[in-house]
Amino acid sequence: MSFIEPIAKLISALTKLPGVGPKTAQRYAYSIINMGQEEALALVEAIREARGKVRYCSKCGNFTDADPCVICRTRDKTIICVVKEPKDVLALEKVRSYKGVYHVLHGTINPLEGKGPDDIRIRELLKRIEKGGVREVIMATNTDAEGDATAMYIARLLKGLGVKVTRIAQGMPIGADIEYADEVTLSKAIEDRKSMD
Amino acid sequence: MSFIEPIAKLISALTKLPGVGPKTAQRYAYSIINMGQEEALALVEAIREARGKVRYCSKCGNFTDADPCVICRTRDKTIICVVKEPKDVLALEKVRSYKGVYHVLHGTINPLEGKGPDDIRIRELLKRIEKGGVREVIMATNTDAEGDATAMYIARLLKGLGVKVTRIAQGMPIGADIEYADEVTLSKAIEDRKSMD
Repeated sequence: MSFIEPIAKLISALTKLPGVGPKTAQRYAYSIINMGQEEALALVEAIREARGKVRYCSKCGNFTDADPCVICRTRDKTIICVVKEPKDVLALEKVRSYKGVYHVLHGTINPLEGKGPDDIRIRELLKRIEKGGVREVIMATNTDAEGDATAMYIARLLKGLGVKVTRIAQGMPIGADIEYADEVTLSKAIEDRKSMD
Repeated sequence: MSFIEPIAKLISALTKLPGVGPKTAQRYAYSIINMGQEEALALVEAIREARGKVRYCSKCGNFTDADPCVICRTRDKTIICVVKEPKDVLALEKVRSYKGVYHVLHGTINPLEGKGPDDIRIRELLKRIEKGGVREVIMATNTDAEGDATAMYIARLLKGLGVKVTRIAQGMPIGADIEYADEVTLSKAIEDRKSMD
């Protein structure tokens, strides 16, 4: 069965969304066609507006509709938390305890994908630190091989710039069973054990 | 963490898609913002075009961009297959063996949701049959309570109009284990058993 052309086009456009295959795209397409006029317009407008208004903050690289972003404008600039992607900022903001600013790298060093240090926003991070006033840089890249390598690379770069570089703690997630933890996590958790005094 | 307004709006518009919660909508929103300009435009245009061009066929009620639809124009009009929704037509068309036309009810009789016979396209079906030339009506509504009740209701209405009314076969799906079949299906499969002669 071939879809009529406007539906086929819509399905094809929707499969560009992450994790959306033809079956899901078809479901979305049918729902969009059946939507009330108001909802459909709101969707189109929201896409247009987000595309038009959302930029990267010139300081931290996070999504923003004003430059610099509200976090860069209002928070403690002496601590910078370095993350891979804008969505990582979101995850960290949920914690609510962090009061510093961010630096979004937009990627990690990944030789297999041909991504070197110059392909992510490391130079911009260096510039921010060279301007002075930064006490600490927290490396909050993912705890996978690329995230670790990137954190290590940046830590080495920052040596001698008079800034403390830290890495987020790695170990057992809270509420987890030792029995089901993977070996790498468990070994890290033992290695980094803390005194209980 | 509150999203900046354009992103919040886009997420809210995307949660109107079926099965899309805030988390998935957020993923889609970020992907839309990161898309190439061409892809994003294609998506917006596809939505606009689908909304603008796709109508219901005045005969069968299926989605179409030309009226009557290509199925109503080109296929055997002596057999009408009655289904609940446009997507059911799609599923049946995949089989490729059916050569007749369709009639989309856009719903089933469902007293719990306050949906009566007048709220779905039963009157339109009657009119098509009263015009003559129809040999058989295949009731292909879902095999749940509402689908069965609707099929039964329509079958009763069509009595005396000189048209054969059939219901799609119900029983064990192909390739299934008897062991794992539910009781209702199994009981139906035994009740409707066919001679192997």
